[in-house]
Amino acid sequence: MVIDCHGHYTTAPRQLQAFRDEQIAALKDPTAAPPKTLASISDDQLRESVQPQLKFQTDRGTDVTIFSPRASAMAHHIGDATTSLDWTRHCNDLIHRVCTLFPQNFVGVCQLPQTPGAPLANCIEELERTVNELGFIGCNLNPDPSGGHWTAPPLTDRFWYPFYEKLVELDVPAMVHVSASCNSNFHATGAHYLNADTTAFMQFLQADLFKDFPGLRMIIPHGGGAVPYHWGRYRGLAQDLKRPLLTELIRDNVFFDTCVYHQPGIDLLMNVVPAENILFGSEMVGAVRGIDPQTGHYYDDTKRYVDAAAIDDRARANILEGNARRVYPRINAKFKMQNAK
Amino acid sequence: MVIDCHGHYTTAPRQLQAFRDEQIAALKDPTAAPPKTLASISDDQLRESVQPQLKFQTDRGTDVTIFSPRASAMAHHIGDATTSLDWTRHCNDLIHRVCTLFPQNFVGVCQLPQTPGAPLANCIEELERTVNELGFIGCNLNPDPSGGHWTAPPLTDRFWYPFYEKLVELDVPAMVHVSASCNSNFHATGAHYLNADTTAFMQFLQADLFKDFPGLRMIIPHGGGAVPYHWGRYRGLAQDLKRPLLTELIRDNVFFDTCVYHQPGIDLLMNVVPAENILFGSEMVGAVRGIDPQTGHYYDDTKRYVDAAAIDDRARANILEGNARRVYPRINAKFKMQNAK
Repeated sequence: MVIDCHGHYTTAPRQLQAFRDEQIAALKDPTAAPPKTLASISDDQLRESVQPQLKFQTDRGTDVTIFSPRASAMAHHIGDATTSLDWTRHCNDLIHRVCTLFPQNFVGVCQLPQTPGAPLANCIEELERTVNELGFIGCNLNPDPSGGHWTAPPLTDRFWYPFYEKLVELDVPAMVHVSASCNSNFHATGAHYLNADTTAFMQFLQADLFKDFPGLRMIIPHGGGAVPYHWGRYRGLAQDLKRPLLTELIRDNVFFDTCVYHQPGIDLLMNVVPAENILFGSEMVGAVRGIDPQTGHYYDDTKRYVDAAAIDDRARANILEGNARRVYPRINAKFKMQNAK
Repeated sequence: MVIDCHGHYTTAPRQLQAFRDEQIAALKDPTAAPPKTLASISDDQLRESVQPQLKFQTDRGTDVTIFSPRASAMAHHIGDATTSLDWTRHCNDLIHRVCTLFPQNFVGVCQLPQTPGAPLANCIEELERTVNELGFIGCNLNPDPSGGHWTAPPLTDRFWYPFYEKLVELDVPAMVHVSASCNSNFHATGAHYLNADTTAFMQFLQADLFKDFPGLRMIIPHGGGAVPYHWGRYRGLAQDLKRPLLTELIRDNVFFDTCVYHQPGIDLLMNVVPAENILFGSEMVGAVRGIDPQTGHYYDDTKRYVDAAAIDDRARANILEGNARRVYPRINAKFKMQNAK
């Protein structure tokens, strides 16, 4: 079975965006009330909306996608804690409905109702709700809810510890994933996302977070940002800073996905990062939607690159399935090993 | 001749830091006056201070270093425009003295007196002074003088255009280089530097800056941040955004250095980026100072990686010398081709 650890619901029915638009309009107009509910979306509309993902799964030979709300639309910087909570719950509930309609194809990961400067109590509650009541198996944690102003404490700060305690208690991981940028310096998918990945890794390198939480597991998406390309730099920085070897530092706690959209990048990732720390992911339908004229295939068809990488069968099996089962253990109750599909 | 396009004066005599400390102390104490002058530094002290760089040049088989003030110490966020100007002029003057003492080994690139929110007139003046009076051949341009808060306009904004006009008029390039981070999210050399590189590239991809300035040349250091590792992502983003092919977009205007501290990273860089757009650089004595136990050589001995890369002799010659002569043409008046040394 092939598990894609990184898929967002970028193709949701228009009612979801209409709700959001109404919510944002109400923020700007004090005489308007925020919308109470999402307009009705039928099961057929949901089925129709994920046809692109289902077709890509079939065409590319993948089985199940770990599926979360559209990352760029989380936009935690918009409105206040109530805005964020209302929006988040609707987004997560839709993911749950899709996963219920296609239990063989999707398993849920939640958006969190983060807000700049707000405490994490809402996030802890929503994590519990989605994991315990909706069967979700992880979450997307935004290290910069300000959307490109980077006003939150580093991920290694004790501010985040109550949330990490809940992650460990529920035995679910977090993917470190920012959202839209409202800073004109940062293109979202071309700069902000990769910068956040790089930033988070260096934060992890500097601190003893995983000594405090040996059971905490973080996925750094987009192939780890700049990190594998600069693996020598990070090995050297760790050495200069008298920190552990990178391979020890990340072993049980930090994982990179394979959302790197060309063969040389994937080859580098496989070359320098231990296979145990790599999870197959494609980010489809996501940041890059075109077909690469150099290959004739979609840029984000990362399965092709993983299939072509010079790694042994055991490593490939772990990257495509085994590691995801270890990092997201709650997936095992839904999908048994040996092609249960 | 081998030209290292990226060296900072990280080993300056202690009088320079003493001046800076006094300057910063005066900012905090309204009864104190800022220092008027740098304490006297003898030529012998300067000679002594660059022995590490000279030894590395000899040991590694490089000839001349394009040499600029310590990047992390530029700290444009400290004080006001006067603070920045005073500090910058002292830093640049010291570079000039070193280049005068060792004209075969160093050629100057200037720090700019940037300040968050301040106009660029000071920068234009200091660029003219250092190029016309001190014989410098380029500058380091900080896209984020706030030190990690990213409050300046993107590099493609018209705010920067008067400065670019001067760069083109003087026929000197800019290396896009941030300084220290005062945002606790960003480790300077482990996150902020690489994020800035990635950010700048995406800004260039989005706008028509080089249509407005066909003669403008920008070096993105640290191997281009995350960009070559994600070359497929950027090719795909350019395609989705209906922008030119990356190779066309960067051809005469955007260059990456080789400050990537392991062989797989350099191999990737050489594999995906045209050789004409790569300049040899080491960043020595800089971000990473240790010896790689995997190779027994310094991490930042990037010449070894370039020598070992699977490229042809012409590409290697261009990367080690020819491209730097094209990007920094004022170097040609100082160093003739064919091993003039």
